[in-house]
Amino acid sequence: MQEVIKKIQQPNDTKIVLCVLDGLGGLPVGGSTELEAANTPNMDKLARGGATGHHTPVAVGITPGSGAAHLGLFGYDPLKYEIGRGVLEALGLGLHLSPNDLAIRGNFATVKYEGDTPIVTDRRAGRIPTDENVRIVSKISKEIKEIDGVKINMTSGIEHRSAIVFTFPEAIPEGGDAIHDTDPQLEGKSPIPPSGNNPEADKVASVVKKFVNRVAEILKDEERANYLLMRGFAVRPRLATFSKAYGLDAACIATYPMYRGVSKLVGMEVLEVEDYSIKSEIDTLKQDFGKHDFFYFHVKKTDSYGEDGNFDAKVRVIEEFDSFVPDILELGPDVIVVTGDHSTPSAMKAHSWHPVPILISSPYARGGGAESFGESECLKGELGTFRAVDLMTLILSHAGRLQKYGA
Amino acid sequence: MQEVIKKIQQPNDTKIVLCVLDGLGGLPVGGSTELEAANTPNMDKLARGGATGHHTPVAVGITPGSGAAHLGLFGYDPLKYEIGRGVLEALGLGLHLSPNDLAIRGNFATVKYEGDTPIVTDRRAGRIPTDENVRIVSKISKEIKEIDGVKINMTSGIEHRSAIVFTFPEAIPEGGDAIHDTDPQLEGKSPIPPSGNNPEADKVASVVKKFVNRVAEILKDEERANYLLMRGFAVRPRLATFSKAYGLDAACIATYPMYRGVSKLVGMEVLEVEDYSIKSEIDTLKQDFGKHDFFYFHVKKTDSYGEDGNFDAKVRVIEEFDSFVPDILELGPDVIVVTGDHSTPSAMKAHSWHPVPILISSPYARGGGAESFGESECLKGELGTFRAVDLMTLILSHAGRLQKYGA
Repeated sequence: MQEVIKKIQQPNDTKIVLCVLDGLGGLPVGGSTELEAANTPNMDKLARGGATGHHTPVAVGITPGSGAAHLGLFGYDPLKYEIGRGVLEALGLGLHLSPNDLAIRGNFATVKYEGDTPIVTDRRAGRIPTDENVRIVSKISKEIKEIDGVKINMTSGIEHRSAIVFTFPEAIPEGGDAIHDTDPQLEGKSPIPPSGNNPEADKVASVVKKFVNRVAEILKDEERANYLLMRGFAVRPRLATFSKAYGLDAACIATYPMYRGVSKLVGMEVLEVEDYSIKSEIDTLKQDFGKHDFFYFHVKKTDSYGEDGNFDAKVRVIEEFDSFVPDILELGPDVIVVTGDHSTPSAMKAHSWHPVPILISSPYARGGGAESFGESECLKGELGTFRAVDLMTLILSHAGRLQKYGA
Repeated sequence: MQEVIKKIQQPNDTKIVLCVLDGLGGLPVGGSTELEAANTPNMDKLARGGATGHHTPVAVGITPGSGAAHLGLFGYDPLKYEIGRGVLEALGLGLHLSPNDLAIRGNFATVKYEGDTPIVTDRRAGRIPTDENVRIVSKISKEIKEIDGVKINMTSGIEHRSAIVFTFPEAIPEGGDAIHDTDPQLEGKSPIPPSGNNPEADKVASVVKKFVNRVAEILKDEERANYLLMRGFAVRPRLATFSKAYGLDAACIATYPMYRGVSKLVGMEVLEVEDYSIKSEIDTLKQDFGKHDFFYFHVKKTDSYGEDGNFDAKVRVIEEFDSFVPDILELGPDVIVVTGDHSTPSAMKAHSWHPVPILISSPYARGGGAESFGESECLKGELGTFRAVDLMTLILSHAGRLQKYGA
């Protein structure tokens, strides 16, 4: 559909705000889902006058990861484009990636040795504080700058997390990033030695293997972070930017690295946010509202509390976001969308496949469907249930940014 | 899907009437859409007993042109098949098209000359009366019959419109019709000289260029229609006929050229209608009801008044059509469908992307969904929201014309 949209896009000066409450959708506990239990007078009003429905994040019955779910919301079919976690992590930490780059998510871990064999005793190295992480990464970076002509760049993340970028002398061939995670997923097991799914990936994996062993040598005297597990080996996919695909100058307001990363991948400008609060994100939106056409506004904690199984805390985050809706409205955007990237029912403590309630507020909504913003009410709305990958088309039309198709 | 249907179609003697109220869908003004505001007791009754829902004409969020929207209703995916306006215009005026034919929509215009350079002063030549058009086309046709071995056939349309068919000695190669419109779209600008997007189209365009210059010479003393602008250069797409695709002997009852054109393209017999009134179309339906299996019955004015922004007049056309529903029922068709090809909300004065309400009346509808025929009520219906391209499959099943699929 992006090919079609590229031909019929017509720029104008409308402003669009896409609010993504991560993991918004839920399951009822005592009769109501988190969204239904929350007191959300502002979103309820938008739902009554707006177009409502549900979106299916990736495909019917599929539980998406956050990267895949966001790609869908942004109009890139996640069944066609895959983004490895390494790429998301690296971009989120502000690293640039070229086709020569292999990106990997690193997790510091604690191992004990049985003879020469490392056994994982803590997959997260006791969630070391971030400054300990920074010290260790700096130690590794001083010792290892290059292996077999491959440049290595390591960056600290939060707690035990890091991103590593291997820059090869030339573009990594297709399939060259098909390398198994080294994280054994279970404590008491040995890390899995890096190996590829095909000969190209094996060549790449041989460099990774040397790196892992040298890191283990460098960290051998550390008390907690004495090993590095690696996940999500990936080369960046080629995606049309929001500017090319949709004619939109787009900006990202998100606090967590992965969401900032996926936004960068589609060409959004990632805006600075003072701290992790919704209030700070709103401040950024207000400050930069004049500078872009499209704002992706991300709220993380709905998902986090869903994953924790904390129904009430998820409700409170939804209510907190709702209290800022008038601030968004005051800016006078032409189109406001509120939805989630996927469902994270606190009853399941996990992402799920359930379709996600959505509202689109614009002058071109029929309205009169849902009486409030919630899973059951949105079933009455004019949008029905549609694939998330079609959302951008709808948004562009509601913003008057698409010409008609065909004679 | 047509490939599947071709295998499982089973002819019978059922009669189907597909009523398309052009641009039927709307947006609420004072709480109701045009269809909801209209007093439509007959369609309301059909909706209560029938299957209701919405269809998405081309794709979610896409605003279709009328040709693309009709292709979808007829079961040909408009994202796969594109029909140029020239082809629709030519077929609508009763011209036959072969793969050797390039069809073009011509608009008589008024130009003034600055030196040798024509400047468009009226893109529609003051909407000259049709008989003036006929006189001028006859004058051109006498003078130009052939250029470089290419036969030229020009036919008058309504007011300033015409269709021109260039018949080449052999089939036009793929891409040969990729010629830019010569209409500059704005008055005060020069017509754009015919040129192609590729070498094949350039060859074709060189003949068009000679034609345009000769026409300008012939018309130089005309007061109003002294130039010919050309749009929608196109070769006919290859579509399976209704007879082959569905086993249906189909007929078209429509008054406007473009709709008659698209019907001819899919192999319908285009029936004569005495004048532009719905009454005359009903008379044709009554007269020829015994002769065909499938009737496409088109009402144009709903769209025209939508485009004019005339809510009340659109309501009245809907009510007028409703008053003829008993006449259709009296003929005893097995399946009646009422829908639009797309939405044309008078609030927008334009086509839009909004899903279109639909009712299917047949003995196999579950019924009991919508309480009347309107956008909001149809959301309660059993059909949900589906792509228009799937409608013909539904219709054929409701007519008992499809065997089961698979063992």
